[in-house]
Amino acid sequence: MTAAPDDSFHVFDTTLRDGAQREGINLTVADKLTIARHLDDFGVGFIEGGWPGANPRDTEFFARAATELDLKHAQLVAFGATRRAGTTAAEDPQVKALLASGAPVITLVAKSHDRHVELALRTTLEENLEMVRDTVRHLREQGRRVFVDCEHFFDGHRADAEYAEAVVRAAHGAGADVVVLCDTNGGMLPGEVRDVVAQVLARTGARLGIHAQDDTGCAVANTLAAVDAGATHVQCTANGYGERVGNANLFPVVAALELKYGRRVLPEGCLAEMTRISHAIAEVVNLAPSTHQPYVGVSAFAHKAGLHASAIKVDPDLYQHITPELVGNSMRMLVSDMAGRASIELKGKELGYDLSDRDLLGRVVARVKERENAGYTYEAADASFELLLRDEVAGRRERFFRPESWRAIVEERPDGSHANEATVKLWAKGERIVATGEGNGPVNALDRALRVALERIFPQLAKLELVDYKVRILEGRRGTESVTRVLVETSDGNGEWSTVGVGPNVIAASWQALEDAYTYGLIRAGVLPTE
Amino acid sequence: MTAAPDDSFHVFDTTLRDGAQREGINLTVADKLTIARHLDDFGVGFIEGGWPGANPRDTEFFARAATELDLKHAQLVAFGATRRAGTTAAEDPQVKALLASGAPVITLVAKSHDRHVELALRTTLEENLEMVRDTVRHLREQGRRVFVDCEHFFDGHRADAEYAEAVVRAAHGAGADVVVLCDTNGGMLPGEVRDVVAQVLARTGARLGIHAQDDTGCAVANTLAAVDAGATHVQCTANGYGERVGNANLFPVVAALELKYGRRVLPEGCLAEMTRISHAIAEVVNLAPSTHQPYVGVSAFAHKAGLHASAIKVDPDLYQHITPELVGNSMRMLVSDMAGRASIELKGKELGYDLSDRDLLGRVVARVKERENAGYTYEAADASFELLLRDEVAGRRERFFRPESWRAIVEERPDGSHANEATVKLWAKGERIVATGEGNGPVNALDRALRVALERIFPQLAKLELVDYKVRILEGRRGTESVTRVLVETSDGNGEWSTVGVGPNVIAASWQALEDAYTYGLIRAGVLPTE
Repeated sequence: MTAAPDDSFHVFDTTLRDGAQREGINLTVADKLTIARHLDDFGVGFIEGGWPGANPRDTEFFARAATELDLKHAQLVAFGATRRAGTTAAEDPQVKALLASGAPVITLVAKSHDRHVELALRTTLEENLEMVRDTVRHLREQGRRVFVDCEHFFDGHRADAEYAEAVVRAAHGAGADVVVLCDTNGGMLPGEVRDVVAQVLARTGARLGIHAQDDTGCAVANTLAAVDAGATHVQCTANGYGERVGNANLFPVVAALELKYGRRVLPEGCLAEMTRISHAIAEVVNLAPSTHQPYVGVSAFAHKAGLHASAIKVDPDLYQHITPELVGNSMRMLVSDMAGRASIELKGKELGYDLSDRDLLGRVVARVKERENAGYTYEAADASFELLLRDEVAGRRERFFRPESWRAIVEERPDGSHANEATVKLWAKGERIVATGEGNGPVNALDRALRVALERIFPQLAKLELVDYKVRILEGRRGTESVTRVLVETSDGNGEWSTVGVGPNVIAASWQALEDAYTYGLIRAGVLPTE
Repeated sequence: MTAAPDDSFHVFDTTLRDGAQREGINLTVADKLTIARHLDDFGVGFIEGGWPGANPRDTEFFARAATELDLKHAQLVAFGATRRAGTTAAEDPQVKALLASGAPVITLVAKSHDRHVELALRTTLEENLEMVRDTVRHLREQGRRVFVDCEHFFDGHRADAEYAEAVVRAAHGAGADVVVLCDTNGGMLPGEVRDVVAQVLARTGARLGIHAQDDTGCAVANTLAAVDAGATHVQCTANGYGERVGNANLFPVVAALELKYGRRVLPEGCLAEMTRISHAIAEVVNLAPSTHQPYVGVSAFAHKAGLHASAIKVDPDLYQHITPELVGNSMRMLVSDMAGRASIELKGKELGYDLSDRDLLGRVVARVKERENAGYTYEAADASFELLLRDEVAGRRERFFRPESWRAIVEERPDGSHANEATVKLWAKGERIVATGEGNGPVNALDRALRVALERIFPQLAKLELVDYKVRILEGRRGTESVTRVLVETSDGNGEWSTVGVGPNVIAASWQALEDAYTYGLIRAGVLPTE
């Protein structure tokens, strides 16, 4: 491991600027301030906040950041373009806005592909070089640190290497600290990135950075290839958010540098916050965290044990590329149809249940097999699995309520409108309750009827929310009836849990999953079973 | 571009075996057969179908594949392990099951990491080599082609390169056609993959393949790095499905080889089917297609036009790394749907409809866009798409019956039994019909009521059977109601067709899909519309 991070290597985050280009992301100024705090907690060196002057929300962000942000590690960066053709940087209102943002560091985007200079800037190649030199020099004179993003660099280098490198030299010569080679269209593969970065480094002597887009699925590898070739500045976004496919994902880039390269790029202790911060940022941008994201996804260290469970018990490191706790994640054993005793024992331990008693373990395994044969799946329904475990440990089903019957009615009326109504009859704390609910569908109506019935007795249920609902029809063997499997995800604001129901039809299966969901929710809330 | 694919380069798909390890995927035999057909359409050379003998569902898959699959390009591969220690391959029941599967190609997984031999196999290093040699030799004698997957190869090579290479030599010497180096724990980065593959190739002379997992986010790059170093066999999964983070994604690997390396690895014309096939497989496994997947995601060529709109119009290739149509995708300037004019025209042609009339095509495209915005998907519902086309060609909806209203009731009685009853009221051939059906679920009851109502008038419906049924809840934006999408597959004994329905709840959506299913069935049967 090399020393703690200093200026010799830059982790530069552009979630708030380039990441916000992702389809479906729309950040308020408050969102941006929150994300900046998370990124600072993670220990990145630079946070690119937006384009002040071009975007009123970004102008406001820099104004509020000056008073509301108290960054421990990161420096704030304003993004903008080189001055317009035929003027001076000192006179250009867009350049003035960059200075007015108060950001100590400024990233200037410059054209480095000859065709883009002609087509998008509509100026001459020489004037473009002068725009780079003049703007960098002016900002340096005003005491700012300057990085220059060479847009479309790799495509430009393929079209006219001399000119692309002339832009790098112009930026470097005028005082830019780092010249960032951008794969703006994202079409590069690692081998060529490595070769081009090495060549540009040798020919220009500039300090180089890399900005990769993920259109070939290689943005992380392209970023690392550039580092291999001598780049010392990586531009990334949290969770890989960005235009089209996205940008190089900050988390696997940083994890590779720290854990695979042995290069310290974050302050001590920050890497272990990675999983938490990845999920927290996903919450702010209002996108479900990717379950399969490298290092930080909930599935990233999940094993369908089967064959290997006994070996995993002896030496887990034989089955994982890193210790998941290093990035704040953990190993999970999935209980699946290939699951044997060892994997169920491991899963029990993970949930805090001691299954070393062979009889108890035997009963649990038998019960899981029987239920999985009937169509249940526990790998995606941890809460239902834990209820099954508790039942076997306690020797009986823990119950808060006892259903008597229910009914759901769905109707399409002659005018095309729909009515959904459900009635449940159940017993709780010795009381018989009959309740009716309406909903946008029969399951929703049943859910509401169940809540109406239970909430008076268990007010803890009020904060439970059904956040996801999945249905699968399972084929029977030929000639037999199929069964329906429903997975329900429920949240109480602090966490989420999944439950499963299987039945002859979607409503009956949903009812079971809802029963488990509410039972588990009450256990989480610390309520004691009444029966 | 090199010549059309021959045996000199293998595109090997393991979606049905390793891909099925992904958390949340649970495939029926029918699902596996459908996916195999899609993969064959895509033109992969090998389809690994599962582990016959170890898993009853996989045994059944190979049995049914023998009669039900008619592969144009691919060969079917059975996966299994080397024989157990202390026996012979000829006697090993697991090896017998591999032969009994009838698959012409067999992939054997072998341990190549010394610690795994000791810990998981609990045998000696020499016996492990003999297990490889004996099993490969036996399968070759039985006329099968053999590939050997060296599990945990890269970790093993780091721990004991001599032994890992001895396993490669054992497999190669015994007659294995390809020895596949597996990054089972997925911790590798491209630079080291390239070095190790080059070294193993130089030292063993075996034909090498690569199997990469995506735990560092570099599986695609690792696969390409192995190819750079001389590997000529790539193992991938559709959409990167697989254990933990997933496997190397088939689609960006193949696209890079064809479009970036100029190496033809698919039959002519197949690459342009990539987007469609990626989405169709996602539908079968019942996972939402990733919007941000490289090449095939809905967002992969989506531009927030802004600044560059006019430049994009002049020369779109300055803003995209490939022409999206090469992979069956298209550039999008706005948030909209998947359907482009060209793909709809092509799809129409495929179904026998001439859409060269620009007005007609424009109307169909507009209608598809409107319906897709509402949640319909025509990718997996050919029959509903054809009905839409017919409507636009005819200028009106072809109808055999006209529903008035329907109602479904589901009840769980105090004794735990279920009652499902549905009533439909409709008009057909001028007659008003009221019919009631019971079923094992509300949709089944509705289906039966609809049949009772229609069969007297259309006896052709008697042989129709509902063979598959899938439900997906489509998330609205937070705070708005979600909608439900139902896909129904119907068979008349000669063929199957899929229809889609979208509605505020599962019953209403099912009703629409059933209406389309019966309408299409009557058209197939040659019945003339009555209205």
